[in-house]
Amino acid sequence: MAAGELLQRVRDQRPLIHHITNYVVMNETANATLAFGALPVMAHAREEVADMTKSARALVLNIGTLSAEWVDAMLIAGVTANRYGIPVVLDPVGVGASRFRTETARRILSEVKVAVLSCNAGECASLSGVTESMKGVDARDMDYDVTDITRSVARTFGVIASVSGAIDHVSDGERDAAIANGHPMLATITGTGCISSAITACLLSVSDHPFDAAVAARIAVGVAGEDAAATAPGPGTFHVNLYDSLAALNPSTLDQRAKLS
Amino acid sequence: MAAGELLQRVRDQRPLIHHITNYVVMNETANATLAFGALPVMAHAREEVADMTKSARALVLNIGTLSAEWVDAMLIAGVTANRYGIPVVLDPVGVGASRFRTETARRILSEVKVAVLSCNAGECASLSGVTESMKGVDARDMDYDVTDITRSVARTFGVIASVSGAIDHVSDGERDAAIANGHPMLATITGTGCISSAITACLLSVSDHPFDAAVAARIAVGVAGEDAAATAPGPGTFHVNLYDSLAALNPSTLDQRAKLS
Amino acid sequence: MAAGELLQRVRDQRPLIHHITNYVVMNETANATLAFGALPVMAHAREEVADMTKSARALVLNIGTLSAEWVDAMLIAGVTANRYGIPVVLDPVGVGASRFRTETARRILSEVKVAVLSCNAGECASLSGVTESMKGVDARDMDYDVTDITRSVARTFGVIASVSGAIDHVSDGERDAAIANGHPMLATITGTGCISSAITACLLSVSDHPFDAAVAARIAVGVAGEDAAATAPGPGTFHVNLYDSLAALNPSTLDQRAKLS
Repeated sequence: MAAGELLQRVRDQRPLIHHITNYVVMNETANATLAFGALPVMAHAREEVADMTKSARALVLNIGTLSAEWVDAMLIAGVTANRYGIPVVLDPVGVGASRFRTETARRILSEVKVAVLSCNAGECASLSGVTESMKGVDARDMDYDVTDITRSVARTFGVIASVSGAIDHVSDGERDAAIANGHPMLATITGTGCISSAITACLLSVSDHPFDAAVAARIAVGVAGEDAAATAPGPGTFHVNLYDSLAALNPSTLDQRAKLS
Repeated sequence: MAAGELLQRVRDQRPLIHHITNYVVMNETANATLAFGALPVMAHAREEVADMTKSARALVLNIGTLSAEWVDAMLIAGVTANRYGIPVVLDPVGVGASRFRTETARRILSEVKVAVLSCNAGECASLSGVTESMKGVDARDMDYDVTDITRSVARTFGVIASVSGAIDHVSDGERDAAIANGHPMLATITGTGCISSAITACLLSVSDHPFDAAVAARIAVGVAGEDAAATAPGPGTFHVNLYDSLAALNPSTLDQRAKLS
Repeated sequence: MAAGELLQRVRDQRPLIHHITNYVVMNETANATLAFGALPVMAHAREEVADMTKSARALVLNIGTLSAEWVDAMLIAGVTANRYGIPVVLDPVGVGASRFRTETARRILSEVKVAVLSCNAGECASLSGVTESMKGVDARDMDYDVTDITRSVARTFGVIASVSGAIDHVSDGERDAAIANGHPMLATITGTGCISSAITACLLSVSDHPFDAAVAARIAVGVAGEDAAATAPGPGTFHVNLYDSLAALNPSTLDQRAKLS
């Protein structure tokens, strides 16, 4: 299904999206969810995550600032989502940067059926087992083919893999898509990867085809980034513009603007 | 007392406001407190909340991202505030969305004397026992009269109830006020309800009349929202403008701009 | 070494900076780190802080929203940093406002070798033992000489003390510097002190001279604040401009703009 049509569905249906995400981007992903047309709920207590997940139409698990209690909550929420047929997006932020993150990402992938794994190329490489020189959560040196590792991770974990970069890659293990939308300024602020995962969940909640939803999310965030950068003298203004641009995305022109191959 | 006069007192006295609030809006409510003219302190550890509350002139309890430890801290801070005569604002974010939130909100209302209960219509309906169809923390379907449930909640819990909506309602159980200030863009970003609760605490700290403080807060945030929306192409810019507008509120014209009935 | 040269090094080397900081400013300090040219990683779990610190080139410990688990994590990270020769910046936010914060700040200073202690005048006074009337974490009444207490704290704790105010002061216990850059609008938003500590860590990671790094950070944030204020009608716009201004800092003119004595 076309990206514009999925966006229109989000605006029409206003789906509730449950986020268990990191402290750094909670405000940002909640506001991106609202700007895109959906409704966010953020809740992480073991006592209530199952209640929240059951009310929602998609669940985001983002491991950016983990602790043991939050891992428990993510597993409870993920299993609940699976039981009720609610699709799950996993953003394995920083996987490979510590044993704790790597084990947590693998544990979630093992115990929860994840619909879309949304990450950057370094995180994808780490999950695929490619040796790499890690540098933080935002940028890494790369010496691998991103199309290959995206497909490999999709097959290994039985997910749609959606991987950000100068060119974004999406694969279900058989089909591959490359999306050339976006702007270098998306890398000048923290949380744009997390925002992409949130937007993926918004689209996933209104689609029966997670591959289409993942592709549409990369197009939508890329186009919004292009629009936000057009008048931004620096990263502060870009950050503000990004919400304006997400809210202003036009369903009827979105697919024309897609740089999809 | 008039809203403008209370705002002027906040600017003159710069009261310290202790916030125990949710992760999503901590930066936002601290900055709104500063923009309005008061000083924020955010602290949640059981080891220190009593010390912090004792130093402050008002306390905000906001249950937006609860966990068991934070509930303990809120109760300690609330009881401390009561002992020292420091007024308490409770924002029962998402009450009704999970049993944990509902029990926590009711427990705080039972163990702490709350001066102002600040929430949206759905949360008020949930506390009043009205059956409703819940949708996240930001929007709900309504099939009840907001004036009625505001008054009912005020009576049941012995608080000033301050309820946001297209028209805001404030009641002490006997007197009712309706405030028609505000703008639909206030609902396009997360945290404007939490900001309203923070501003209520700022005004409550300089007033002996919590009803007046609650009304003044709804006027002030509504007027700031109107000003912020005037030049905002989207939610990102509106968010930024809101702090500029809170800081630019004019005590001498605030009451003329109030749409109060 | 000159401030401009250190800034250029940050831009060239893109050092990874590990922040264990407070919830209120996590997004803000991550974005300031990126805008300045470095890479942030935020992680606080006891299970992973040692891994993260080992990968980083500087560590920030900021006690703004403490709890017992976070204190443990800070100590683990700090000791790890010391073992690997990674410089540590401590921002003792709100020290003096509660016994818990005071004990935590002193414990970190006792168990971890801190390179730069970055704080405001009230926090410095509290650590130096000066009696004072505390008012929140953002502003305090002062009745002491800031040059004296800065030097005193530097000597007592064997650190570079870097203290913000209308005039910033840096001392290693022998040499003193005063930096008159900055703008009153820096005090109208929360987190500019925390941002200064983050920028100090960025510069410390590329310098063998922590005194120079601390001075350069005060100059850089001060100049960025001046630029951000130039076109800001209020605190919301100032906040946004600050990131634009940090990203636009010019290494070749930074030292000419320094108001250093």
